[in-house]
Amino acid sequence: MRVTPSPQPAGTDRGGPGLGSVAIVGAGQVGTMLGLALRGVGEDRGACEVTLFDRNPSTAAVSLGRGAGDRVLATAAEALGAGTIILALPVPDILGYLAEYGGRAQPGSLFLDTGSAKAEVVQAMRDCLAPGVHAVGGHPMVGTEGVGPAAAHPELLRDAAFVLTPVHDDAEALTRARALVRRLGARPLEMDAERHDTTIARTSHLPHVTAFAIAAAAGRAASGPDFAPGLASTGYRSATRLADSNPYMVASFLSANRTHVRTGVQELRSWLTRFEAELETSPEQLGRFLAEAASQGAKVA
Amino acid sequence: MRVTPSPQPAGTDRGGPGLGSVAIVGAGQVGTMLGLALRGVGEDRGACEVTLFDRNPSTAAVSLGRGAGDRVLATAAEALGAGTIILALPVPDILGYLAEYGGRAQPGSLFLDTGSAKAEVVQAMRDCLAPGVHAVGGHPMVGTEGVGPAAAHPELLRDAAFVLTPVHDDAEALTRARALVRRLGARPLEMDAERHDTTIARTSHLPHVTAFAIAAAAGRAASGPDFAPGLASTGYRSATRLADSNPYMVASFLSANRTHVRTGVQELRSWLTRFEAELETSPEQLGRFLAEAASQGAKVA
Repeated sequence: MRVTPSPQPAGTDRGGPGLGSVAIVGAGQVGTMLGLALRGVGEDRGACEVTLFDRNPSTAAVSLGRGAGDRVLATAAEALGAGTIILALPVPDILGYLAEYGGRAQPGSLFLDTGSAKAEVVQAMRDCLAPGVHAVGGHPMVGTEGVGPAAAHPELLRDAAFVLTPVHDDAEALTRARALVRRLGARPLEMDAERHDTTIARTSHLPHVTAFAIAAAAGRAASGPDFAPGLASTGYRSATRLADSNPYMVASFLSANRTHVRTGVQELRSWLTRFEAELETSPEQLGRFLAEAASQGAKVA
Repeated sequence: MRVTPSPQPAGTDRGGPGLGSVAIVGAGQVGTMLGLALRGVGEDRGACEVTLFDRNPSTAAVSLGRGAGDRVLATAAEALGAGTIILALPVPDILGYLAEYGGRAQPGSLFLDTGSAKAEVVQAMRDCLAPGVHAVGGHPMVGTEGVGPAAAHPELLRDAAFVLTPVHDDAEALTRARALVRRLGARPLEMDAERHDTTIARTSHLPHVTAFAIAAAAGRAASGPDFAPGLASTGYRSATRLADSNPYMVASFLSANRTHVRTGVQELRSWLTRFEAELETSPEQLGRFLAEAASQGAKVA
């Protein structure tokens, strides 16, 4: 299909310097959060046109109903007409969009995504986008285990870190992406994709894996005759909260960050093996082993 | 030393039917929470004498200062003079107290503890307490990662489950323990010690183990050159919150529940092994595997 370019050059339209009209592809929790934050900031309210696309029309309708956009686009390709295109999709769908539409992107437009694994996305941006298209990988460090536009909480973006991973040596791309992140109320945090993926495997992806692991182990015991219902307390809920996430969404980012997740899980398993050995010693020695783990963890924050 | 028995027979003093004066041994987070709840309930305020002992005098002083007791006892043995003795200690210290003082306990008095592993405690109550002493194992299903009397939150007891595990076939013991639990604002939940320990290994002890495991794995990565600070988000904090607990306290209950914890950790490790294999397939297949785990976990609540 033919795409009509935005009638206004990026950086000069009513979105303010460097922003342009914004199309959000994927109107789930994250896309809706971004749309609400872009449209709802005090005196700027409504200053930036935001359009929404979701392959599920009812998701787009709910997102629009919450006020995350000015209108819904009929096709994914129409997003290419905006000054800034945000791909708020699971990583495989980001890769799919770039492969299908990237070659028809308008020079001067800016692509940004929100996927939680960056190396593959950044590579696909390099491989698929037409010449002259600006691109930056992105990952807002917020979100909950909720699913869909109803679970969007734009207030979480306030002062949150929003990782930006460079795609090309392109100062304009970073300048525009930083401006957009600040407009969302978040803090731009630049790093290369590899560094992001290594870190996030430990700080986000492993916690997802263990949440599902505990749910599976406890659930298996809960099917047996010796299990008492009603004992799961705040500790259990806190440890398994992430297992309330959409499992297919979780699988998509764990798969996209497979190498680092694999290493992280191997580290976990080897720590658990050591733990089993320490468990057979004395409470004092086990306590020292746990204290060492806690002091290592203190380096993370 | 000689212990002076309570001048009033248990069940008839100003603590109300079946309660008696209460001595709390261990004035940390849990003991302070119980003292505050016993003394602070509306019109009953002050109706029950609560005495406190802690081997650390400054801990007892802070607890008294928060209002968790009427006075501080000078020695652990003095607690034997109360109608009800609550051992709010780590499991090894509960066992130690019973071994050292149980033989001198007064007939008619009631022993209750708050340890998070029950089989060893119940056995020690059977082995150590003098004839005619009532006893019930207890475990309030509340608490936070905070440490010490300053971290006590009595409002958490409201409607919380408080497990009671029988020691002897002793209806009076259970009646009095139930009355005490209701006075705390909590819900008595009776089960045998084995059932408690099997369950709690999965719903509480495994979440503690994984919190330390993630802290260790992330902390190890955080010491390396490829780790970016500032990316730990709500998911990480939720998954590692329990690693802020006192590691020696955690070690004490994991050790006390060693058999079930070992089994639970082996289940975790074998799930992680399966996870690693599924990670190498497709996002869709991995998603099905995670969805199955989440649906097993739904049986727990």
